[in-house]
Amino acid sequence: MKEDRLFLVTNDDGINARGLDALIEVVRPFGKVFVIAPEEGQSGMSHAITVKYPIRLSKVHEEKGLVKYSSNGTPVDCVKLALNKLLDRAPDMILSGINHGSNASSSVIYSGTMAAAIEGCINGIPSIGFSLLDYSPDANFSSVLKYAEMILSDALEKGIPDETCLNVNFPVNTYKKIKGIRVCRQNKGVWKEEFDHRRDPQNRDYYWLTGEFINLEPDAPDTDEYALHNNYISIVPVHIDLTSYKAIDKLRNWDIETG
Amino acid sequence: MKEDRLFLVTNDDGINARGLDALIEVVRPFGKVFVIAPEEGQSGMSHAITVKYPIRLSKVHEEKGLVKYSSNGTPVDCVKLALNKLLDRAPDMILSGINHGSNASSSVIYSGTMAAAIEGCINGIPSIGFSLLDYSPDANFSSVLKYAEMILSDALEKGIPDETCLNVNFPVNTYKKIKGIRVCRQNKGVWKEEFDHRRDPQNRDYYWLTGEFINLEPDAPDTDEYALHNNYISIVPVHIDLTSYKAIDKLRNWDIETG
Repeated sequence: MKEDRLFLVTNDDGINARGLDALIEVVRPFGKVFVIAPEEGQSGMSHAITVKYPIRLSKVHEEKGLVKYSSNGTPVDCVKLALNKLLDRAPDMILSGINHGSNASSSVIYSGTMAAAIEGCINGIPSIGFSLLDYSPDANFSSVLKYAEMILSDALEKGIPDETCLNVNFPVNTYKKIKGIRVCRQNKGVWKEEFDHRRDPQNRDYYWLTGEFINLEPDAPDTDEYALHNNYISIVPVHIDLTSYKAIDKLRNWDIETG
Repeated sequence: MKEDRLFLVTNDDGINARGLDALIEVVRPFGKVFVIAPEEGQSGMSHAITVKYPIRLSKVHEEKGLVKYSSNGTPVDCVKLALNKLLDRAPDMILSGINHGSNASSSVIYSGTMAAAIEGCINGIPSIGFSLLDYSPDANFSSVLKYAEMILSDALEKGIPDETCLNVNFPVNTYKKIKGIRVCRQNKGVWKEEFDHRRDPQNRDYYWLTGEFINLEPDAPDTDEYALHNNYISIVPVHIDLTSYKAIDKLRNWDIETG
């Protein structure tokens, strides 16, 4: 039975990222694996799609049960290419990551890793994004593989709730042991930017975007940030309906509806 | 009093788009206007931020009550530059658009216009994204200006609900009269992609991303797509908490929580 399962694997750190190899290692025992990932890192690309430039594709690896493509497109482009061009049937699940760095709290909105999972969700395909709280290209994923396998196994057996994808973040556990897994809500937080101002050799100004994350509710125990801070793995169910239903009545009280 | 208000205006169609001029025309009577918009069109950039390339900035216009900057960054970069670098106080409101083309249904997730409003919302600033269902660079915004003014006026007087921004879409009304305004939820829909396959002069394959919108619930009268199809203006309150609260209990039933 396992052999019949088809998994689409992608990320936003690029085809050569260690986190992608780690995720492929986790998923291979569960079925066939089709990988399509950006040629280069595409962190912070969110749900961007490429409409102004031609999209290129290369098959970079093929062996029994594993095919790998790379593309100059974004993570969402990669998912769209797989679903609409390269695969002859819908995959059973889309897995994205393992991202080098956190996608907890409001970072989920900026994340290319999670955008790929969200694109799966829009298309009705069960999807999970995985991230490790270590931005280093040399991040060590070995200690979280068994947890990723456990979550994948449960997702396959019990099913991801409809119209939902999962945002899974792993704490760094080089020094501290992971305590367990928590189902959480998205923490309220904001990136406070500081633009690093420089001058190029032609004396023209330019800026690098840098930022610091501000946790707006550090003491809320049901959030992903809190779980991660306390050395738990966080799982946030993410949905694609951005409607604030509780705001609808407030807006109707504007008496703006006419006609 | 009016003179004390400060508005940040941006878009994703670029500093020279007609829709931006239309929005500036709407907002100027309400206070000071600070514009920062991409140099070129950035449609489909969603919530992308620029971390791999230097960000450039140019002041392109200044007169009493109106300053305009352009940047090579994304719409979200533009908002971040304004909030963290260029403005000496937080604006009273962020307005994005008027977009050339729909941002109703799931298009809200791909939209740079709405990402700018969502970035305002993340930063606690009342924000509205406006879009007209006409993708043409020559789109005629004149007939919707009075509605944009009405919505802006109500938003200033009555307040946008906390942790929410507004996604306002205008139907094209060249032939049919706009019937009124409806507060809606986000329609369920998906873009079905078809990659246009070509070969370049070096005989290498490339693809253009093209797509067709599929409405998954065309008969649901409380959605933005339905309102627009029936010649109403749609307003969807959009929030930044992507947590699916109803899925949390289902996930807890996995018995995956440990530790």
